[in-house]
Amino acid sequence: MKRTVIIGSGNLAEALARAIDRSSLQLVQIFSRNARRAEEVARLSHTAAESDPARLADADIYIIAVSDRAIAEVAASLPLPPSAVVAHTSGSTPLEALPDHMRRAVFYPLQTYTKGREVDFGKIPIFIEAESEELRNTLRDYALHLSDKVIFADSATRGELHLAAVMVCNFTNQMYALGEEIAARSGLGFEVLKPLIEETTAKALAAASPRDVQTGPAVRGDLATQERHCKLLEQEPLTLNIYKLISQSIWETSKKI
Amino acid sequence: MKRTVIIGSGNLAEALARAIDRSSLQLVQIFSRNARRAEEVARLSHTAAESDPARLADADIYIIAVSDRAIAEVAASLPLPPSAVVAHTSGSTPLEALPDHMRRAVFYPLQTYTKGREVDFGKIPIFIEAESEELRNTLRDYALHLSDKVIFADSATRGELHLAAVMVCNFTNQMYALGEEIAARSGLGFEVLKPLIEETTAKALAAASPRDVQTGPAVRGDLATQERHCKLLEQEPLTLNIYKLISQSIWETSKKI
Repeated sequence: MKRTVIIGSGNLAEALARAIDRSSLQLVQIFSRNARRAEEVARLSHTAAESDPARLADADIYIIAVSDRAIAEVAASLPLPPSAVVAHTSGSTPLEALPDHMRRAVFYPLQTYTKGREVDFGKIPIFIEAESEELRNTLRDYALHLSDKVIFADSATRGELHLAAVMVCNFTNQMYALGEEIAARSGLGFEVLKPLIEETTAKALAAASPRDVQTGPAVRGDLATQERHCKLLEQEPLTLNIYKLISQSIWETSKKI
Repeated sequence: MKRTVIIGSGNLAEALARAIDRSSLQLVQIFSRNARRAEEVARLSHTAAESDPARLADADIYIIAVSDRAIAEVAASLPLPPSAVVAHTSGSTPLEALPDHMRRAVFYPLQTYTKGREVDFGKIPIFIEAESEELRNTLRDYALHLSDKVIFADSATRGELHLAAVMVCNFTNQMYALGEEIAARSGLGFEVLKPLIEETTAKALAAASPRDVQTGPAVRGDLATQERHCKLLEQEPLTLNIYKLISQSIWETSKKI
């Protein structure tokens, strides 16, 4: 199983297309209703673009990399050959979102994708799901062309993983945004926080568990400093509540160790 | 002004001692009541250790790197020469915590310090404060031996910065800890989240503002996914509340752009 069509032209579609292009797999087409973006992704991954369903290319596997909402409709409306594998790429969508007459599967590479940023696909864990052992194994062999870390996960596990991903990615990024906002009140730019952000992440990644390297007033139980911080947030009730709850969460996590 | 005594032997004292040792400044002594740790830090920074107040070395500047609570008492109890500069290193402690008969100052290098981890001091912003312009300039010249980024900041600004630091460092680390906890419910280790964490941080550091690179269900206003996530957190009321408030904060931040 090598001949691949990617359906979709968003950031994940782009990253995946580039990774397939660099692998020993065969990328035969980027299919997207957005003809302009399909062309762009196809150009970056040295393949053909198509937006007319009647000209969907023949392939062994169709990877549906569209928004969660659109998965079911896209799968149902395209003339997909019944012998092909059809996989969606969503962390939070069950396998069952795909029609059950298909050789349906999930292919979820856990990463955050940004237009124009190349990611090293070889380091990304790919979570796969399929209903038969035969298809699971076929899909695993396929995914191993792209990454060393291929992991079977059912829809429930993938749902939890997606939640964990939101925490360490979107919520972390919001902590950066709140830090930037607070620094800006003193006329300081995001720049001054960057060395701290870099080291915080490097430290956590080097640790067996992030719990082992927690620092600051919350884990020390330093209530005087916490009170001073809360006073600074008096005018920002939402951020104040976030401050209090995360401080409490840090304190409770430290007790579990 | 070059001859430096560091008072304290914690993680910041260690990082600072190593940085001074590598600079053109002169580290004449590590002073700490914890004789064993003083020896350790002194060994790492090729200087002498001392724990007897009667043998505190003569120096141009005494940098007090002890816990916030202990600053005032340490400054008052040691036989510090009146001609010397006495600086504390705390983000959340006002200059006035030091006795007012001293040439008092603040020297706050914004970073997180861990025993055994070397940090590149040259990249750390150092925030300094003093009551006279003369002392501010002296302190700036001193700090420039250690870092290119030396910034004047009064106690109010430093207090805000410390709060911003707690957000981007301690709170970010707690997002990692919560992500780990959730992945563990499916038997998956922290390892699977590491490539995502790495890319999230790299992306924010490369951006003009972290707000510009936010992704995920909260910024998209994808309530269906948020509801699924909340359901997964039913048994964890504190984490559930954190999820809801940060999602709301992301949504409101995105409207400000």
